[in-house]
Amino acid sequence: MSKQFNRREFLKTSYTAGFAALATQLDVQGVSANDQNPMLTVRSRLRSRSWLMPAHFGQPEWGQPWPDQPGELHYGDVTGISISYLTDGEKLSSYLPHPYELEGPPIVTVGYSMNRDITWLAGGEYNIVAVTVRATYPGEIDKVSGSYVLVMWENLTDPILAGREFQGIPKIYGEIEDHRIFNGVWRATLSNRGRTILDIQAANLVKIEPDQLQQLNARSAQGRMLGWKYIPDETGSGPIVSYATEFPMSTRYKEAWSATGSLKWYPQTWEENPAQAHIVNAMHSLPIKRIVSSEVAKLSNTLLVGKVRRLR
Amino acid sequence: MSKQFNRREFLKTSYTAGFAALATQLDVQGVSANDQNPMLTVRSRLRSRSWLMPAHFGQPEWGQPWPDQPGELHYGDVTGISISYLTDGEKLSSYLPHPYELEGPPIVTVGYSMNRDITWLAGGEYNIVAVTVRATYPGEIDKVSGSYVLVMWENLTDPILAGREFQGIPKIYGEIEDHRIFNGVWRATLSNRGRTILDIQAANLVKIEPDQLQQLNARSAQGRMLGWKYIPDETGSGPIVSYATEFPMSTRYKEAWSATGSLKWYPQTWEENPAQAHIVNAMHSLPIKRIVSSEVAKLSNTLLVGKVRRLR
Amino acid sequence: MSKQFNRREFLKTSYTAGFAALATQLDVQGVSANDQNPMLTVRSRLRSRSWLMPAHFGQPEWGQPWPDQPGELHYGDVTGISISYLTDGEKLSSYLPHPYELEGPPIVTVGYSMNRDITWLAGGEYNIVAVTVRATYPGEIDKVSGSYVLVMWENLTDPILAGREFQGIPKIYGEIEDHRIFNGVWRATLSNRGRTILDIQAANLVKIEPDQLQQLNARSAQGRMLGWKYIPDETGSGPIVSYATEFPMSTRYKEAWSATGSLKWYPQTWEENPAQAHIVNAMHSLPIKRIVSSEVAKLSNTLLVGKVRRLR
Amino acid sequence: MSKQFNRREFLKTSYTAGFAALATQLDVQGVSANDQNPMLTVRSRLRSRSWLMPAHFGQPEWGQPWPDQPGELHYGDVTGISISYLTDGEKLSSYLPHPYELEGPPIVTVGYSMNRDITWLAGGEYNIVAVTVRATYPGEIDKVSGSYVLVMWENLTDPILAGREFQGIPKIYGEIEDHRIFNGVWRATLSNRGRTILDIQAANLVKIEPDQLQQLNARSAQGRMLGWKYIPDETGSGPIVSYATEFPMSTRYKEAWSATGSLKWYPQTWEENPAQAHIVNAMHSLPIKRIVSSEVAKLSNTLLVGKVRRLR
Repeated sequence: MSKQFNRREFLKTSYTAGFAALATQLDVQGVSANDQNPMLTVRSRLRSRSWLMPAHFGQPEWGQPWPDQPGELHYGDVTGISISYLTDGEKLSSYLPHPYELEGPPIVTVGYSMNRDITWLAGGEYNIVAVTVRATYPGEIDKVSGSYVLVMWENLTDPILAGREFQGIPKIYGEIEDHRIFNGVWRATLSNRGRTILDIQAANLVKIEPDQLQQLNARSAQGRMLGWKYIPDETGSGPIVSYATEFPMSTRYKEAWSATGSLKWYPQTWEENPAQAHIVNAMHSLPIKRIVSSEVAKLSNTLLVGKVRRLR
Repeated sequence: MSKQFNRREFLKTSYTAGFAALATQLDVQGVSANDQNPMLTVRSRLRSRSWLMPAHFGQPEWGQPWPDQPGELHYGDVTGISISYLTDGEKLSSYLPHPYELEGPPIVTVGYSMNRDITWLAGGEYNIVAVTVRATYPGEIDKVSGSYVLVMWENLTDPILAGREFQGIPKIYGEIEDHRIFNGVWRATLSNRGRTILDIQAANLVKIEPDQLQQLNARSAQGRMLGWKYIPDETGSGPIVSYATEFPMSTRYKEAWSATGSLKWYPQTWEENPAQAHIVNAMHSLPIKRIVSSEVAKLSNTLLVGKVRRLR
Repeated sequence: MSKQFNRREFLKTSYTAGFAALATQLDVQGVSANDQNPMLTVRSRLRSRSWLMPAHFGQPEWGQPWPDQPGELHYGDVTGISISYLTDGEKLSSYLPHPYELEGPPIVTVGYSMNRDITWLAGGEYNIVAVTVRATYPGEIDKVSGSYVLVMWENLTDPILAGREFQGIPKIYGEIEDHRIFNGVWRATLSNRGRTILDIQAANLVKIEPDQLQQLNARSAQGRMLGWKYIPDETGSGPIVSYATEFPMSTRYKEAWSATGSLKWYPQTWEENPAQAHIVNAMHSLPIKRIVSSEVAKLSNTLLVGKVRRLR
Repeated sequence: MSKQFNRREFLKTSYTAGFAALATQLDVQGVSANDQNPMLTVRSRLRSRSWLMPAHFGQPEWGQPWPDQPGELHYGDVTGISISYLTDGEKLSSYLPHPYELEGPPIVTVGYSMNRDITWLAGGEYNIVAVTVRATYPGEIDKVSGSYVLVMWENLTDPILAGREFQGIPKIYGEIEDHRIFNGVWRATLSNRGRTILDIQAANLVKIEPDQLQQLNARSAQGRMLGWKYIPDETGSGPIVSYATEFPMSTRYKEAWSATGSLKWYPQTWEENPAQAHIVNAMHSLPIKRIVSSEVAKLSNTLLVGKVRRLR
C-alpha cells in the first residue's frame, strides 16, 4: 500500500489541505504504518508516533513499564514560590496577542519552581520561572480562560524544545539555581551568562489550614496554561504557524504557605543577553504597583499533554 | 486601515492560503504596520519583523551599527575538526526522509567546531558537533545537493531554537568542551549530563598548500546544509510542518590541515539520556567501516539566513 | 602594646613555636587585636578570626542571627545513597598513610549525597560523592577509629577549599547531578568534563523499621571522618603540612531504606582528566568482590567543625 | 634502610625541624624511596613526588613525552584584557599583609585572561580574573617587588587547588565566560551563581608598534606574582602556614593594543555569595579614581613553578 501512495503528489497538496483532517482520512483508509506520519516518509520511523526534530530518528524508546497514564506526564515533586503583582493594564495588554484579553485586573504572576521526579526525564529534574497573566480567549468556537504564559525560563533544553514545538509555550533558557532558605527567607534567582534577570523572595511563611488546602486543590485540579504557538517561515518574513493553544494541567498541593513576597527585574543591554534582553526589558518596564499575593508550596503536577489543543 | 482589517475573518482563512503570497499581497495593498505579521496581532509588535516565541515581545533590538550584510550572519573565528567515514548505505539511507537520496557513497561526516566572534550573539561563542551526510533533493521544482544534517548538537540554547524554528536544522543540546591539543593530538568530546556521547580526535596534522587552500575555498564559498523542518501538532498525533529546507552558507578557510582522525560513538540507555538516547544509539549503530578523510581548519563562516528556503 | 611587639622577630620564631600555645599566650598577655592572627598582620583583619586565602580580606560577614550552635554547621536536608563493597585488602591498605590501619575487612563505602539547607552557604546546596574506608589511627596519644576519606568529590568549589584547608579532607571537583528515580530505581552519576567516573544505583528499597532507625541514629550520633591534611611546599619537593585529622559529625536519620545496590568505576586516561585520572584509576583498580550493603536515606548532618583536630 | 627509619619518632620531630633542610639530609643519606616524602608514608606513593590532597594516591601520571621544560608550565595561547586604576592608598594598603608595602602610587590592576593550550591540563583551558597591586617585600633576606595578588578568580577548580596549596595564590572560583567582541568593544564578565561581580570592557584598540612590543617583552620576560600562603589550623583558631611567596613567570607578548578601558564592581550580600561577598565588597569599596592604563594582548605565559619560593 505504501508503494501505491503517491508521495510526491501528497507533498504538493497536503500543506494547504489541513493536517488533522488528512490524518483522520489516512487512518480511515487503513494505510500502512509508513503513512501514519503523512508529512514525513522515512524508513527509520515505521510505526513511530510523531516526535521532535530530528524527526527522521523517530521518538525516544521510553522506559518500561511506563508509570504514567496515557496522555499524562507526571511531575512528582515540585517546590514553588509564586508572587503576583498589580501592574499597568494598558502596558500589560499590549503583549497579549489578539484575541486574548486580560481577565480581571492586570496582575502578573511570577512562579519559580524546582521540579523533580519527572517521568519523561527518567526521574530527572529542572527548574522553571514562569511569567503568566490571567487571560481569556474569546474565540469563535472556544471560550476559555487560564494563565497566559508571557515567557517561561527553564534551565534544561529538552523541555524547552518540547514545550515550544508541541504546546506553543514560549520557553527560553535561563540559569535557575535551586532556591535557598536562610533564617526563614526563601530566595530564587534567574540569570543568564552571569547576569541577574530576576530575584524572587518569600518570607514570613504561614502554613495554610487543611480546609484552605482542600479548597486550593479543588481549584487547581483543573488548571490550564494558555499559549501562542508561533513558528516563523525560513527567513522570518512571517509566521507559518501562529495560533492560540490550551495546555490543561492538574495540580495537587501537598503543603502551602502564604508569605510576604518581593521580586525585582533587572534590565539588560542587548550585548549582555542578545536573544532575551528585549523580553527581560519588557518585563522590567511593567511597573510593580503592588504585590497582591505570595505563596510557597510543595505539590505535584500532572501535565495533560494528550489534551493540549489549538484554540479556535 | 488596521481597524478596517477583519482580524477574525483573516485568522480563519489565512492558514490555508499560503503565507508568502499573503505577505506580498499585504505589502502591495499598503496595510498598516499592524498587519505585517498577519498571523499575530499584538500591539507590542508594531513594525517588528517575525521572531521566535515568545512572539508577542517582538524581536531583539539588535546592536547598532549592525556589522553584517543584510540576510547574513557572520561567524568570524571558527576552529573545526572534521572526520568522515564510510558506513552502511542501507542503514544510513533509512534515516533520509523521502525524497532525499544519498549522493555518492554512504559517508557520514562528523564536524566539531568552536565558533567565536558571532555577530548575532554580540560577539559570543558556542560549540557545535554536526553530523551530516551528502544527499540530493530531487524535488519537482528544486533539485539540489548538499550536506543533509542528521543531527546537530550545540552547547547553547539560543542558536538551537533559532536553527530549529527558522531553518529546520535538527539541533539539540550537548555539552561540548573546547577542543584540547596535547603533543599534537587534537581532541573534542560531546556529552550530556556526565555521559560521553562522542569522542573525536585528530593527529599527525599536515598543513595543506596555498593552492589547495584556494581550491578548498572555491568549493566552500557556496556550500549548503539541507534540513527537514518538522513541527508536530499539539499532541504529537502528526506534524503540522514537515518539509525539506535548504540553508546556504559560505565558508572561507584561513588555514587547513589534513590529519589522521578517529572517532567513537558511545551507546546510551534511555534512563541516561531520555530525550536523545535513540539518536545517539542510531549513530552508534552505523558501522565505521573506514575513515575516509580527516581535517582540521581555521575558518570563518557566513550563514546566508536571508536565503534559507523550503524545497519543493 | 602592639607597637612594642617586634613583628619581625616574631615572624622568625613563631613558625617553630607551636601556634596553639602561642595563641593562648597572646590572649593571656592581652595583646592588641592586631596580634590575634600572629602569622598575618594586616589592618583589614583586625578582630577577624582566621579564614581561608585570600586571608588579608578577613572572613565572611556571616548572616545574622546565626542559626547554628557555635562550632557546628548544619546540613538540614540530605538525601543519600550509600553502597559498600568488599575489595582486596592488600591493595586497599596501600592507600592508607602510616600509621592508619584498616579496621575490619577491606570494605569501601561510596556515598552519594544531595545536601540542602546548608547554613554556612546561606541555605544553599551541593552534592557529594565520598569514598571512605573503616580505619583506625593508633597514635601515641590518640587512638580513634572512623571513616577514612580516600577521596571526596563535590560539585561546588567553596566547600572543597574549606574542607581541604581546615579539615584535611581530600575534596576535589566533580560534576554530580541530583539523583534520579524511575520505576523505583535510584541513580546517581559522577563525571568530569563529559567523562563518567562513577555510576551508582539502588533498587528494591525496603524501608527500615522504627526500632532499626533508632539504632541507626544511636550509632551515627557520634560519627567521625578521618583525614590526612597535606600541604606541599612551594615547589612540591615535600610537604609542609602532613598529619592525620579527625572530623566529628552527628547524623540524624529521618528515613532509611535497605536496597540492592550496584556501582561501576570507569577508568580514564590522563588526557581525559589530567588532575584526577590517577585517583579514578586507583579506585577502578580496587576489585568489587561483593556488595555488602546498600542503603538509601533521608537525614540531617551536623558537622562539628569546632572539634576537628590533628591526631597525634 | 626504610625499616630502620623510626617513623613515629620522625613524625614527632620533623614538624619543627625545617622541611627543606630535612629533605636535603635525607637525600644525602641515601634513604629509600619510601622516605622521600618524609611526612607521608604510604605504600602507594613509592617514588612519587609530593602532590596535592588526596596525597595517598601519589601524583598524576603526566602525559609523555612531556613537552615543557622541567620546572616550567606553559600556557601557549592567552588572550587578555588588563585595566589599571588609581584608588585610595590608605584603603588599599590595609589589605597588604605585613611587611608588604605598596610600590608607587596605589594602582589596582584587573586582568581578565582566556588561557588555552595549557600543558599540565593536557591542552585544556580556563579563564582568570586576577586582581593585583604593585608591592615590595622588604624582608630580612629577600627584597623583591612584583604584582601582589589580592584575589584571583578562576573558572576551573584544578588550578585553584594547585595555586593555593603550592604557591599561595589566593584563587577562588568564579564563572568567567570567554570575552566577546562586538563592534570593536571587548567585554568580559565575572559572576558567581547568577550574580555579576565585575564587568570589564575595552574599546578603541590601537595596536602597539613592534619596538614597543619588544620593550614590553623585555620587561615581562622576568615577571613575578607575589602571594601570601595561608593555611588555617583545623578549627580556624589561627594559621599553621602563613608567609609570603614569590611566583616567577615569563610572558611573551605576540600582539598588544592600548585601549580605552572601563570596569565596574558590583557589591553583594552575604546571602548572595556566602564565601566571597566580603572579598567582592572589599574590591567594590576601593574607589576607581581614574583609569590609568588599559591594554588588550595575545601572549603566551610560562609559569616557573620550579622557582616558586617562600620569601623571608
